[in-house]
Amino acid sequence: MHKVKETIFEIIEGADENGSRWSRFFDLFIVGLITLSILQVILESYRNIYTRYAEQFHALEVIIVVFFTIEYLLRLWTAGLKYPQKGGMAARLAFVSSAMGLIDLLAILPFYMPFLIAVDLRFIRILRVVRLLRVFKLNRYLKAVRIVGSVIMEKRSELSITIFVTFLLLLLSSTIMYYLEGDVQPDSFPNIISTFWWAIATLTTVGYGDVYPVTGWGRLISGIIALLGIGLVALPTGIISAAFVEELEKVKNKKTKPKLPEENYRYCPYCGRPMEEH
Amino acid sequence: MHKVKETIFEIIEGADENGSRWSRFFDLFIVGLITLSILQVILESYRNIYTRYAEQFHALEVIIVVFFTIEYLLRLWTAGLKYPQKGGMAARLAFVSSAMGLIDLLAILPFYMPFLIAVDLRFIRILRVVRLLRVFKLNRYLKAVRIVGSVIMEKRSELSITIFVTFLLLLLSSTIMYYLEGDVQPDSFPNIISTFWWAIATLTTVGYGDVYPVTGWGRLISGIIALLGIGLVALPTGIISAAFVEELEKVKNKKTKPKLPEENYRYCPYCGRPMEEH
Amino acid sequence: MHKVKETIFEIIEGADENGSRWSRFFDLFIVGLITLSILQVILESYRNIYTRYAEQFHALEVIIVVFFTIEYLLRLWTAGLKYPQKGGMAARLAFVSSAMGLIDLLAILPFYMPFLIAVDLRFIRILRVVRLLRVFKLNRYLKAVRIVGSVIMEKRSELSITIFVTFLLLLLSSTIMYYLEGDVQPDSFPNIISTFWWAIATLTTVGYGDVYPVTGWGRLISGIIALLGIGLVALPTGIISAAFVEELEKVKNKKTKPKLPEENYRYCPYCGRPMEEH
Amino acid sequence: MHKVKETIFEIIEGADENGSRWSRFFDLFIVGLITLSILQVILESYRNIYTRYAEQFHALEVIIVVFFTIEYLLRLWTAGLKYPQKGGMAARLAFVSSAMGLIDLLAILPFYMPFLIAVDLRFIRILRVVRLLRVFKLNRYLKAVRIVGSVIMEKRSELSITIFVTFLLLLLSSTIMYYLEGDVQPDSFPNIISTFWWAIATLTTVGYGDVYPVTGWGRLISGIIALLGIGLVALPTGIISAAFVEELEKVKNKKTKPKLPEENYRYCPYCGRPMEEH
Repeated sequence: MHKVKETIFEIIEGADENGSRWSRFFDLFIVGLITLSILQVILESYRNIYTRYAEQFHALEVIIVVFFTIEYLLRLWTAGLKYPQKGGMAARLAFVSSAMGLIDLLAILPFYMPFLIAVDLRFIRILRVVRLLRVFKLNRYLKAVRIVGSVIMEKRSELSITIFVTFLLLLLSSTIMYYLEGDVQPDSFPNIISTFWWAIATLTTVGYGDVYPVTGWGRLISGIIALLGIGLVALPTGIISAAFVEELEKVKNKKTKPKLPEENYRYCPYCGRPMEEH
Repeated sequence: MHKVKETIFEIIEGADENGSRWSRFFDLFIVGLITLSILQVILESYRNIYTRYAEQFHALEVIIVVFFTIEYLLRLWTAGLKYPQKGGMAARLAFVSSAMGLIDLLAILPFYMPFLIAVDLRFIRILRVVRLLRVFKLNRYLKAVRIVGSVIMEKRSELSITIFVTFLLLLLSSTIMYYLEGDVQPDSFPNIISTFWWAIATLTTVGYGDVYPVTGWGRLISGIIALLGIGLVALPTGIISAAFVEELEKVKNKKTKPKLPEENYRYCPYCGRPMEEH
Repeated sequence: MHKVKETIFEIIEGADENGSRWSRFFDLFIVGLITLSILQVILESYRNIYTRYAEQFHALEVIIVVFFTIEYLLRLWTAGLKYPQKGGMAARLAFVSSAMGLIDLLAILPFYMPFLIAVDLRFIRILRVVRLLRVFKLNRYLKAVRIVGSVIMEKRSELSITIFVTFLLLLLSSTIMYYLEGDVQPDSFPNIISTFWWAIATLTTVGYGDVYPVTGWGRLISGIIALLGIGLVALPTGIISAAFVEELEKVKNKKTKPKLPEENYRYCPYCGRPMEEH
Repeated sequence: MHKVKETIFEIIEGADENGSRWSRFFDLFIVGLITLSILQVILESYRNIYTRYAEQFHALEVIIVVFFTIEYLLRLWTAGLKYPQKGGMAARLAFVSSAMGLIDLLAILPFYMPFLIAVDLRFIRILRVVRLLRVFKLNRYLKAVRIVGSVIMEKRSELSITIFVTFLLLLLSSTIMYYLEGDVQPDSFPNIISTFWWAIATLTTVGYGDVYPVTGWGRLISGIIALLGIGLVALPTGIISAAFVEELEKVKNKKTKPKLPEENYRYCPYCGRPMEEH
């Protein structure tokens, strides 16, 4: 019995380079299901296609959800092997509350929800694309993922400051702009929250062109915000660049620990006595 | 008496990691007031809400301003402890003329202004968001703030050059564009200053789409400016990236000061004999 | 006979700094032809010009294609010298299937295609611009090309992750946006694939302004995507910056290999006595 | 006589930190004139202002040009002291053909041109803003300018490659887009050159929104170009960042030449004999 559990765990979890043929097949199968499910969501968005193949789509959905449910239950069952330090129930909770566990749940929940509540949660299915991140388990990208991830984690405080300052900037500019343009263009700048739309479009230099200032002062502020937008790009980029440089230097130092010259002299460089003497 | 002053100073100023429980509470209280006040400014911008709850808003404003005024006076009173090297009056002036001091004043002034002048300065209240920067006093972001700040300060001359060159570029392109498009689109390019609006929208790659060239030459210039806009992003980003790299190297060097062998040891670092012996 | 082959190979291939006068002339001649051909493609796009000078254009095309065909055959003939390790036929295949070989073929194929199939492939001729990359063979840019190329190759896994995540982000935002705006603006967001158009325009901060959300939730998502677009710029830029830094450090280390003292000298580097002496 | 020349040269050229009071005054005077002249150009662009104060503007122009002409002649006269290694005439030619010399000439030429040719060259006057670069002579920005300049110069080959590739990309996408959209939107994509306008607006992510694809294939290409636009930002930024890092490391190495441990030992670290012995 316990043997079976381990084998299954091997198949559904241990799918890296040295994973067994079965685990590889399993992963590819899941990836296939996900891709299929995404295509379905996309095709359903075409009204005419949906109306014509409604029941086929439903059938496919049932099949996909069945497989995903089985997978989820298996992961739940073998959670104990994933978190060995934890006990049976605690391990299961750990898995359910883990990021990937929640996504796995969200991938099947929308199917069961309609029986419970009326809201249409079908579009949550698209979250299954996130499950594609499991693909990285399969291949050589894992290291790169770790690097990118650790870089972002390391600099999270610097980055969150830029985000905070950005937010203050958006709030400030929106308010000022509302007081400058609100009376001239009440439709475009009806209130401060709506003005946020303009502020973001300007600061990120998207500039849809649906909302823009027409007064002289408004344009001045808008120009300043747009120029500050450059800084908004420059700051995080600089932070991340430096972090990547740091990262690669760490790696380098690890692999090539420089041999200091004062090591293994045959004679003491200071008092000149042969080192054996001591 | 002096004891009281110090205690109060402790509470309103000394609010970092090792700050007392009271000072922490005080900071949270102020942050709460600021947030409340910002929400108020935003809600007031909804005309229908404002018209209905006008007096409630006014009452809230009075409360907030009262607290901020008390805080300001306390800071003014305890300024002597903030700038110990300075005398009573000089210290107070130093605080009033300090960046944060001015912001604190601007946070309450708009309330008292109407009694003095007619202009509506209510929107200056939004500057209270800047006071939120005090939040950073509370938490672990302080170090990151210092790094980001010092990076920008260190490279201010390089950055101001890019700003200056950007300004020249804007002026040049605006003038040229005015002479190229002014006659064709007198409404979009009526004069050089108005053409600045186009120049900034193009150089920052915002491109609202309200103003754009239609003549061949105008489009050529516009394309060149847009491409130069890439450089406008690349230069400061490069400068800031390098500055961050420099920063982290400094930190590294500080923490791992290499022990140079030519330092004059009292004992030989290799054989441990007193150096005098030789 | 074989002598001729080698000379021709010298002329058409060995066109770097130390290339013969003939090979330089040959390269310039080809570059000239390419430029001419590009000008032709551009001019043909002017309908009035095309209708008037149709036969002249055709004559020019014939001449260009003849030369390119001769060049291609010569390259095919001398392929054996380019891939010496391979045999005659294998070498020819290697050339034909090489990137540059395919481009060379595409440069002449459209001319012969009409006789075979009906489709108008004239516009493929523009691919001849890619042949201009041969220009780099001529000049001092070769080294820079190698650096840029190797940087991109080295970081391809990191970069492809950002691309993959970008794709996921586009898919997620498109689906959410379709469900948010699809009913309000059926023309702008008719289905998920069409919504991609909005997603890309927003994430890359192009923001044409032909499609943009109007609902509050839609604008919120749009703003988030636009802000994430900043990250989309910051991440690859950071990766590439670090790669360039790495690159230049490699070069530095190569050129200034530090002479470590622990290398076993035959003579003492300090007092010059043969090390055997001790 | 020669004494006078040197004094004048001192005044108009030697205007850095250790420049005399007169030379400082002279520089400020010139900067004042330039600013005045720029304001004039801007104000003239306001038609109503120009029509009213036409003769005042002309008078001001005469005054400015007179001063600039005198300055130019003085610089021409003292060119021999600027290029000591060159002879009188050669030195003058060197100055005239120098970048700053040409700008100085362009700053006054438009005034004299109308007597010669009919074309209105007034707008060239705006080039006087470039003369403001002389301001940098005055202040501490000189070093930063050198750094930024040298960085760009060092990496000019890498940067020109990105520019070249960008150009190829623009040409390719324009042609493809012309063939995809030309028939659907003949007004927006009439020919390849006009399509360049769309290509640049997309690649630089300006996206005015006056021209954009409507067909599925067109939007696909447009999306790809927009995404490649990110790379267009990332590459030069990366190059420049690395260059700045290189720059600061050079400076560091210069100022802090690391003292190698094998320097000034009292005893030879290899054979152990006292260094004096040799």
